[in-house]
Amino acid sequence: MNVAVIGTGLIGTSIALALRGQGAAVWLTDSDPAAARLAADLGAGEPLPSTPAEPVDVAVIAVPPAAVAATLAAAQARQLARCYTDVASVKQLPIAQARNLGCDPTCYVPGHPLAGREKHGPAAARADLFLGRTWALCPEPETSGQATEAVTDLVRACGAVPLRTDAASHDRWVALISHAPHLVAAAMAARLEAAPAPALDLAGQGVRDVTRIAAGDTVLWTQILSANAGPVAEVLAAVAADLAEAARTLADGEDAGKTVAALLDRGQAGVARIPGKHGGAPRLFAVVQVVIPDQPGELARLFQATGAAGVNIEDVRIEHSPGLPVGVAELSVRPAEAGPLLDALEAAGWPVRR
Amino acid sequence: MNVAVIGTGLIGTSIALALRGQGAAVWLTDSDPAAARLAADLGAGEPLPSTPAEPVDVAVIAVPPAAVAATLAAAQARQLARCYTDVASVKQLPIAQARNLGCDPTCYVPGHPLAGREKHGPAAARADLFLGRTWALCPEPETSGQATEAVTDLVRACGAVPLRTDAASHDRWVALISHAPHLVAAAMAARLEAAPAPALDLAGQGVRDVTRIAAGDTVLWTQILSANAGPVAEVLAAVAADLAEAARTLADGEDAGKTVAALLDRGQAGVARIPGKHGGAPRLFAVVQVVIPDQPGELARLFQATGAAGVNIEDVRIEHSPGLPVGVAELSVRPAEAGPLLDALEAAGWPVRR
Repeated sequence: MNVAVIGTGLIGTSIALALRGQGAAVWLTDSDPAAARLAADLGAGEPLPSTPAEPVDVAVIAVPPAAVAATLAAAQARQLARCYTDVASVKQLPIAQARNLGCDPTCYVPGHPLAGREKHGPAAARADLFLGRTWALCPEPETSGQATEAVTDLVRACGAVPLRTDAASHDRWVALISHAPHLVAAAMAARLEAAPAPALDLAGQGVRDVTRIAAGDTVLWTQILSANAGPVAEVLAAVAADLAEAARTLADGEDAGKTVAALLDRGQAGVARIPGKHGGAPRLFAVVQVVIPDQPGELARLFQATGAAGVNIEDVRIEHSPGLPVGVAELSVRPAEAGPLLDALEAAGWPVRR
Repeated sequence: MNVAVIGTGLIGTSIALALRGQGAAVWLTDSDPAAARLAADLGAGEPLPSTPAEPVDVAVIAVPPAAVAATLAAAQARQLARCYTDVASVKQLPIAQARNLGCDPTCYVPGHPLAGREKHGPAAARADLFLGRTWALCPEPETSGQATEAVTDLVRACGAVPLRTDAASHDRWVALISHAPHLVAAAMAARLEAAPAPALDLAGQGVRDVTRIAAGDTVLWTQILSANAGPVAEVLAAVAADLAEAARTLADGEDAGKTVAALLDRGQAGVARIPGKHGGAPRLFAVVQVVIPDQPGELARLFQATGAAGVNIEDVRIEHSPGLPVGVAELSVRPAEAGPLLDALEAAGWPVRR
């Protein structure tokens, strides 16, 4: 496969690395030549000659949402590729803008890999960024089957799982599952900006988790949220209304318990619908807790013991005791393996809690 | 030390276990005799005789917030202890109710350990639940120094760090750092209840983190939120207003970018104020990423390598690739140790990403 990657940020460079790993020839270009050079140095491909000898199979447009249409138009004008895809996390806006610019829709397969990191730039790229991730593809009615097939092959070559849908559904779904949660986290975190210092000393894992993603890149997220404004606004308005109603009933004292309990119940039902690691129900795993000294080598000893027990650790969370030299490792395992693991760890002298 | 624990749920039983570990004599009682019996079987102490021979040093009232005052009044009436504390996560309400019931304030030291789990009941208790955790104490003007000292000793015996404050400040702080985030998570999670199934397939770590705590116990949380209604309502109203404004500007298209960017910036500033593990600034650690096969023994091999390198792993997060047999371990280490760790892991043949 012959591929051109336009935009060598985190996503573009990761795609290039993944495809190179599959033996594809990859050309790289970026509006910042240093970024393209760095990506090339990382082994992601070769700098794109200004005029390629002949069109590549697929051009991946990995630029911010607002720049997709103009980049597509320019690439089509120079006949860079036989077909094109993009990776913007919104789909209706670039599709509409591409139509306005007169782009050819038959060879354009709008796409969105559901993968990312809090870091950005080519240095943060990983060939395995897309392994097992969902990658939405939203071909338009005019898009040729050939183009869709070529881009689907590219998605699979990156190790991702293609999901065919339409742009409007895609945008509503990501508003709900990604864009709105980002602003909700930010709105909660914003309350901490002027909080008294001792209040922050009371912070536990809960508020840390709720606000973690609010640490993301403001410029990129502003563009994403603005580009998916309608669907995001709808979700946010509903969340705001629920919170305002909870605030009102709590302040009034009228039926506060009932309103709050109903919201908590709906929240529980919502969380329960998020699929777990292996696509099954969430919180599928049993958690085994072990007290560990906070020093080099202890995790090694612990995981030697779990390995010796033949138990696969599905997830690890380490709860820390600020200021004290111990922590608690919470090991998630398949429920049937919890008993044997507890026995094995106890036999190896680990302080476990049953 | 002679202690009575009234209410052998997660917190009460954990306190009893911690104190027993320090050699204290502990009496246990619960409105549900089976719970007290289970706690006793777990080694948390002895069932409380209906009339103890003489008052114990401290009685810990570990019952839901709304039941604290009546429980305190009954315990004081039978002269159960020389001094009393509670563990409710709100403080003004039980204090006011205790006054109304004519409780003796001189020997009552209202308290709140900042520790918990998503599980509840005596079986989930842990002697180390309070290790290094903040434990707020809110003595009233009438509270005797002797009582405050006795309860402070108990807090330290549990391994916690006492924080003296007043009940009103405490309630405002926990509203901000614990109670409001819980409802914010629930309000976001509630949007997922009726979401189309494919939307949930797009769920990444972000929405999982934002909504995780919404899985908590509705009955207990309704009581907590109702008992701290005023301060919680204030925070929620502010969050709702910010979200409603973001929704409005996004829907209107007027200056949406500016409003959204300002909210994201404030969120970033808020997140940055949450202290990290060792009480320092958050995100203090460098993250080293290693690709690991998702099978028994691999984490052992990895942590043997980190242990051999003499590097202390401060935190571990495992990012999974649903459906594929690999994961990425993200190891948090002190920044100065990231380089040596990368070298050591690479030398040991681990695929690391620099």
